[in-house]
Amino acid sequence: MLNKFCKKPLYEVTRTMANVAMGVEKAEMVIRNAKLVNVCTAEIQEGIDVAITQGRIALVGDASHCIGDDTQIIDASGQYIAPGFMDAHIHVESAMITVGEYGRAVVPRGTTGIFMDPHEICNVCGPEGVKAMIDDGKRTPLKAMSNVPSCVPAVAGFEDTGSHIGPEEVREMMTWDGIMGLGEMMSFPNVLSAEPNIHGELAETLKADQVITGHFSIPDTAAGLNAYIASGVRCCHESTRAVDVLEKMRHGMYALMRYGSAWHDMPVIIRAILDNDVEDRFACLISDDTHPDTLISEGHMDHIIRCAVKEGLDPIKAIQYVTINPATCFRMDHEMGSITPGKCADIVFFDDLNDIRITRTIIDGDIVAENGKMVAELSEPDFPASVYDTMHVGETITADSFRIKAPDGKDTVSTRVIEIIPNHVGNYEKIMDLNVTDGFVEADPENDIMKMAVFERHHNTGTKGVGFVKGFGFKKGAMAQTVAHDAHNLLVAGTNDEDMALAANTLIECGGGLCAVADGKVLAIVPLPIAGLMNDLPAEEMADLVAKLDVAWKEMGCVINSPYMTMALIPLACLPELRLTNRGLVDCRTFSFADLFVE
Amino acid sequence: MLNKFCKKPLYEVTRTMANVAMGVEKAEMVIRNAKLVNVCTAEIQEGIDVAITQGRIALVGDASHCIGDDTQIIDASGQYIAPGFMDAHIHVESAMITVGEYGRAVVPRGTTGIFMDPHEICNVCGPEGVKAMIDDGKRTPLKAMSNVPSCVPAVAGFEDTGSHIGPEEVREMMTWDGIMGLGEMMSFPNVLSAEPNIHGELAETLKADQVITGHFSIPDTAAGLNAYIASGVRCCHESTRAVDVLEKMRHGMYALMRYGSAWHDMPVIIRAILDNDVEDRFACLISDDTHPDTLISEGHMDHIIRCAVKEGLDPIKAIQYVTINPATCFRMDHEMGSITPGKCADIVFFDDLNDIRITRTIIDGDIVAENGKMVAELSEPDFPASVYDTMHVGETITADSFRIKAPDGKDTVSTRVIEIIPNHVGNYEKIMDLNVTDGFVEADPENDIMKMAVFERHHNTGTKGVGFVKGFGFKKGAMAQTVAHDAHNLLVAGTNDEDMALAANTLIECGGGLCAVADGKVLAIVPLPIAGLMNDLPAEEMADLVAKLDVAWKEMGCVINSPYMTMALIPLACLPELRLTNRGLVDCRTFSFADLFVE
Repeated sequence: MLNKFCKKPLYEVTRTMANVAMGVEKAEMVIRNAKLVNVCTAEIQEGIDVAITQGRIALVGDASHCIGDDTQIIDASGQYIAPGFMDAHIHVESAMITVGEYGRAVVPRGTTGIFMDPHEICNVCGPEGVKAMIDDGKRTPLKAMSNVPSCVPAVAGFEDTGSHIGPEEVREMMTWDGIMGLGEMMSFPNVLSAEPNIHGELAETLKADQVITGHFSIPDTAAGLNAYIASGVRCCHESTRAVDVLEKMRHGMYALMRYGSAWHDMPVIIRAILDNDVEDRFACLISDDTHPDTLISEGHMDHIIRCAVKEGLDPIKAIQYVTINPATCFRMDHEMGSITPGKCADIVFFDDLNDIRITRTIIDGDIVAENGKMVAELSEPDFPASVYDTMHVGETITADSFRIKAPDGKDTVSTRVIEIIPNHVGNYEKIMDLNVTDGFVEADPENDIMKMAVFERHHNTGTKGVGFVKGFGFKKGAMAQTVAHDAHNLLVAGTNDEDMALAANTLIECGGGLCAVADGKVLAIVPLPIAGLMNDLPAEEMADLVAKLDVAWKEMGCVINSPYMTMALIPLACLPELRLTNRGLVDCRTFSFADLFVE
Repeated sequence: MLNKFCKKPLYEVTRTMANVAMGVEKAEMVIRNAKLVNVCTAEIQEGIDVAITQGRIALVGDASHCIGDDTQIIDASGQYIAPGFMDAHIHVESAMITVGEYGRAVVPRGTTGIFMDPHEICNVCGPEGVKAMIDDGKRTPLKAMSNVPSCVPAVAGFEDTGSHIGPEEVREMMTWDGIMGLGEMMSFPNVLSAEPNIHGELAETLKADQVITGHFSIPDTAAGLNAYIASGVRCCHESTRAVDVLEKMRHGMYALMRYGSAWHDMPVIIRAILDNDVEDRFACLISDDTHPDTLISEGHMDHIIRCAVKEGLDPIKAIQYVTINPATCFRMDHEMGSITPGKCADIVFFDDLNDIRITRTIIDGDIVAENGKMVAELSEPDFPASVYDTMHVGETITADSFRIKAPDGKDTVSTRVIEIIPNHVGNYEKIMDLNVTDGFVEADPENDIMKMAVFERHHNTGTKGVGFVKGFGFKKGAMAQTVAHDAHNLLVAGTNDEDMALAANTLIECGGGLCAVADGKVLAIVPLPIAGLMNDLPAEEMADLVAKLDVAWKEMGCVINSPYMTMALIPLACLPELRLTNRGLVDCRTFSFADLFVE
């Protein structure tokens, strides 16, 4: 498809490219004497010059004749150059920062392009939110190429989101300039069952000559995987076993190997390539979800490359997995992904092939980052007002909002409790006897049981679900968040109704985010005023805010890692066993609503 | 780009694909227990089933559950299956048969797709001729995907053709259904010099999101090659040295290695891959030009694969070079080029990986050839009348038409003679003293000098060029042809004016072709009534006719191989040194017209 992400389309500048390569016109920039990581032939070439004009590469070889008085010369002696890194599957919202700030964080790390799937903001703000992300991406030299979110809501019928995506929205959005494909098709059961609406989305994507990206997360490499791929899905990042990767590649599907902040699949699944004598043109490395602190302390694709090399992967292959392979996956290899004539001049520099640390990033022929810092200027974010106005809870929340009436005349009541499993996405349904006080069922901090509520916050429906959760270890206080996947409703958990009300109202007031409350005081807050998902602060400051929240939670007695992540999954009604949405408890083994109390 | 060459677009049938893969609906065909040449991972997988429906592959693996009462089962035990072969650069006209008959010849050999560049018919009939070729291709299951010819005429200003292609024609034709890219850009000097008209064609192709195919035939891997690639050219079949292939691949250009009937570049240039430790995803094998007798006696891509394997190439790689690699070159790898779910079911069968002889060809899920014979029915050709009416010579040709008046009062005259070089495309300018008889310069068979004339035959301009040629060895008679590259005018050569007139009029009468005449009699004729380039006979019959012409030529004293090919190049005004077009002698070293007589 036509690339709208470079400084100028090639068709406008072919004559200039030819003239510069021939030396008739002079290059704007020449990189001299580099060690080129050639991802086309998988070799290192020494003593290579690169001539650049109009944001594109005019010549690779000896560029002496391309140099004029005004040519900027970069001496790359002793340095490697490689194509800029691309992340073929990433949710920017996971980092809780804007696309612009994401660019500021990752471009100095060598990332020059991302294929983002903004399905979080889409669940809150709909297509307008996707548009806002695409527009925000224009503030940064990072090529923020967007997919159309495919599964909004994630689990239709069991929750209420701010918006809805169907075949008609897909058809319309595929015509947008910033769009490159359909976002992760999480509704794989509906793909396999030939459900017409989901297949309508696939059809509209294929008609638009775009790429369908996948999410096939079950251990099936037979009928189901074939049905999924045969329906047109071109890539998938949900492999957890080496055999998943191997069979996806064998079936012509790009296997995107994930190494995110929380999900470290890559070391396991890369054995598919390291332990088998197979060609790997269908292999990519991706991040999926990255916390702001990971971006700051570890990096982005550079970090993932280093980790893959540590596992034993040849570094040239690792670089192919984040350059020419993802570019080919998205059928953009004629525009990006290699340092070859005509391509966008997206180039990174480093000194050690076995420990890649980026020292300079060039995008579209401009030096945009050096020595770990962005040198390109970013303009201020300019989101539409609507994305700052997303807290529409249909009731005034007080302590009474959290009272749960017991069945008449009982002292204890047999209750369905959600028991979390630390460091895992799944949970258990646990039947427990809870105490009744004055006719109401209460939290029981001594037995590590908190009360929990999910308020619909998009359309003032006033709907809410209530329940109990076990396993966080909180001794006091409450916490609340609006990240709560995938409907991003207002989730509150706590040991007492008063703190829960304060936590909820704190977030309603600041437009969403994460907070911790105890003894009637706000201990820490991470405001996420953009859709209740993001803040326009730099990644460093966001990482600091999250760290303070961590401290507060620990003080309150929390015993698990990344509690806000684990908490955020509690409403995600496509994971086993028991989930709580604004419509109530959902048994995800049977996909049916469950009563709070067991008769 | 959207594929219009399969039975049904994937977007119409995704639900059926899913249902068949899941076994909910049953497959139309299942291939069982094959040895799969997996071009994605470059390995052989044994015991593989393939389920097919709607012309596409639904499942690869164990297809037991896809089999129903009506499923056609093919037991492939002991047999290999591979994706159907594709030829990424081919001129059908070279074989002098129609696209339909070309399909009949090559499909049983395992060819399921060709990217044809019909620039010969375009020189004669213009875009309407290209359209006729595309339409004719629909008679055959062969996927005859067409490029838009880019260089019509081949050498503007020195010859007259039937038509002209410029940026506007390219823009218009890129919207046609059967089009996949721009044909070989032979005007590489104009690409390198940034000539606006040629770059206009490149720009229109890129704007249409299509692929530009190349023809870069000079030994330059530096500035010129970079300028050519930077202008957007994605592949090139004109490599004659191993370094050409290596540097093209390194620069991200698909290196199409040629093994045609007359041009055997592959054994030399494939050393680029065999002798270097480089990855080869940019390597392809192609035929360019194939004579009908080669198709019959040797084969097509199967023959080229066998030859490459003989040179030492791994057979799995050889198959990649004619399947997934060309598909990716044309950005159609999501539709064809591998046996993976969702792709068109274009599949070939064979028994021996090291001596590939195709036993069965499936296209779009239908068995179209078995045991070397097409089993699919071909409808009759239905060319528009205009392509049969292309002999428009603006004078009545008699013996007098060939008389060449000498300068007054001379007995001998110093003359520029074209001396051919057997088995090479180049020739020499030779200055010779020719005898004058009754005021006219005559042929001199005893010294192997024939008279030659080129008549414009498209627009009745009545223009002609005359000259002399040396080296064929003819003792008597005359020969004529309308293939004469690239303007395809009427070329006549002979030892006497009467036989030359008979040869010319014989072809005018039959609508063009090749013929041999001696002593006032037609000895042999290959009628090419379609544009003076093709006949709708099967390849076998065309090969027989050509063989009879060969015999006639030998009887007349001809001493060189493929005399009609060598003769056909005499008007091609982009090859050194001296050429004869309908406008006269052209010195191709200086690109200027030359006088016949030297003062």
